[in-house]
Amino acid sequence: MIDIEGMDRVENELAKSLDSGLPVLCHAGRHIVFSGGKRIRPALLLLSYRAVGGNDIEHAIPIAASVELIHTATLIHDDINDRSPQRRGSPSVNAMFGESIALLAGDFLFTRLFSLASNYESSILKTLTDSCVKIVEGETQQLMTLGNLTLRENDYLEIVAKKTASLFSACTKVGAMLATQEKGIIDALSEYGFNVGMAFQIRDDILDLVGKKEMLGKPITSDVDQKKMSIVTIHALNQSGDAASVLISRDPERIRTLLKKTGSLEYGLGVATMYMNRAKESLTVLPGSVYKDRLTDIADMVVMRES
Amino acid sequence: MIDIEGMDRVENELAKSLDSGLPVLCHAGRHIVFSGGKRIRPALLLLSYRAVGGNDIEHAIPIAASVELIHTATLIHDDINDRSPQRRGSPSVNAMFGESIALLAGDFLFTRLFSLASNYESSILKTLTDSCVKIVEGETQQLMTLGNLTLRENDYLEIVAKKTASLFSACTKVGAMLATQEKGIIDALSEYGFNVGMAFQIRDDILDLVGKKEMLGKPITSDVDQKKMSIVTIHALNQSGDAASVLISRDPERIRTLLKKTGSLEYGLGVATMYMNRAKESLTVLPGSVYKDRLTDIADMVVMRES
Repeated sequence: MIDIEGMDRVENELAKSLDSGLPVLCHAGRHIVFSGGKRIRPALLLLSYRAVGGNDIEHAIPIAASVELIHTATLIHDDINDRSPQRRGSPSVNAMFGESIALLAGDFLFTRLFSLASNYESSILKTLTDSCVKIVEGETQQLMTLGNLTLRENDYLEIVAKKTASLFSACTKVGAMLATQEKGIIDALSEYGFNVGMAFQIRDDILDLVGKKEMLGKPITSDVDQKKMSIVTIHALNQSGDAASVLISRDPERIRTLLKKTGSLEYGLGVATMYMNRAKESLTVLPGSVYKDRLTDIADMVVMRES
Repeated sequence: MIDIEGMDRVENELAKSLDSGLPVLCHAGRHIVFSGGKRIRPALLLLSYRAVGGNDIEHAIPIAASVELIHTATLIHDDINDRSPQRRGSPSVNAMFGESIALLAGDFLFTRLFSLASNYESSILKTLTDSCVKIVEGETQQLMTLGNLTLRENDYLEIVAKKTASLFSACTKVGAMLATQEKGIIDALSEYGFNVGMAFQIRDDILDLVGKKEMLGKPITSDVDQKKMSIVTIHALNQSGDAASVLISRDPERIRTLLKKTGSLEYGLGVATMYMNRAKESLTVLPGSVYKDRLTDIADMVVMRES
């Protein structure tokens, strides 16, 4: 977890929000919420708030917790649709509690997060709900393009923008909105979050192909197994006539050999780096501060990380 | 549909809220939202608003649409968990679009309704989100007690209170809150909605056993098929040693003969009538008006209805 002032209170808020008279909903919620997530979304929100001059961190805590709940709720529902048996090295909620309870546990988190967010003003809520709509649209687009070997890079990037970058962008935008009304600053932070989110997801997709299972907490090449396309596999398909048969084989060794030959991992990393640089550029409007430095570090970290 | 001033604009609001760049989400959303629902929840909200003296109906339209979306989102997810093939005489969303798209379509409606609601003040939002949490808890409790032949009447009533009456109560409470700050009036309307919701669900459970398929738009005894307990079946189990084997047989004729013998339908109707009377009593604090009369009529209607 990223260590930032206020994160301990985000954890408390998360724990409180998972209370329910129904033990199974608490258990299912806690099982995934406290399974070692990076908490990058609430961290980005709190850092953006600070970097823009916000000085009442308490005010940002509930909404920081609620963005983590958005992320977690979508993970629960994704794992149902993907039939994923594992998440962060533990059984997924669907594997542990069954699909029906998992569906309701996801809904439970969705409703709880809106309870948490209900005290904020409507522009903040609107930013959050707009990103939720985009996430659902992105997940739907991804579902509808599974196994589509003719998917174009632009379509992939659009899916990533919706399913991942929209929430990152909402986090940094909301952090800024809580501290300032300056449109230029708010837009810059929103832009920063969007680009960090793009880089984060592309790195995620690369790690799925060449990461270490014990670092990821899930089997590698699970995206290929689920026929999810990524910038790397799209590049490989464009570079090599053999790529389709290699990907369909689902043989991790053959896939790695292919990707080495086509240079697709390097290509993907190059695109992630481009987004990382754009993210850092967006920060130039901010005055120097320890918080701005942390935001810069996070942009680097999302591209370099191994888990 | 219940004919009340403003309901046409609720329809427009619903149509707008289902817009999405992704045709499949629009289609899935429209398929169920415009499949002939009674719109009782938005109607109750608008009538409560009027009955309490509200005179800017426009102000109540978006939140009236959003309570219908809450209801519809939960129907979509319930139908997944129940593996229901039909809803309102048409294929369910899961039957028509598959379970994965249905899951995301439910999430889409959940996120859209919070967009619609985001302009209201936090006490209104809190009332709505609290009822959403209760709905999820009620659905979860129901799921966990499927086929439990020892379920007590009180447990059943608690499930009904959460999964159905909580949203009815939120509708009438929100309608009142938009028009007045008088706690006595708000509480009375909240109480009215709760009792109407209890009566509504009990009648629903009775109709599942003895309604007409063509009126209901779904097969009768589908609750028994899904092993859902109701006040009627709980009563029958308490009255007759044969009841368990008759219910397990899922033979509609044998079930009807049993319920005739045990008087369980009359018992259920009696309890529904008790809630109906409580609902009407709650209205005594209101001054006479055409809107109050309509609320009274709705309390009668939910117990008498055949569909």
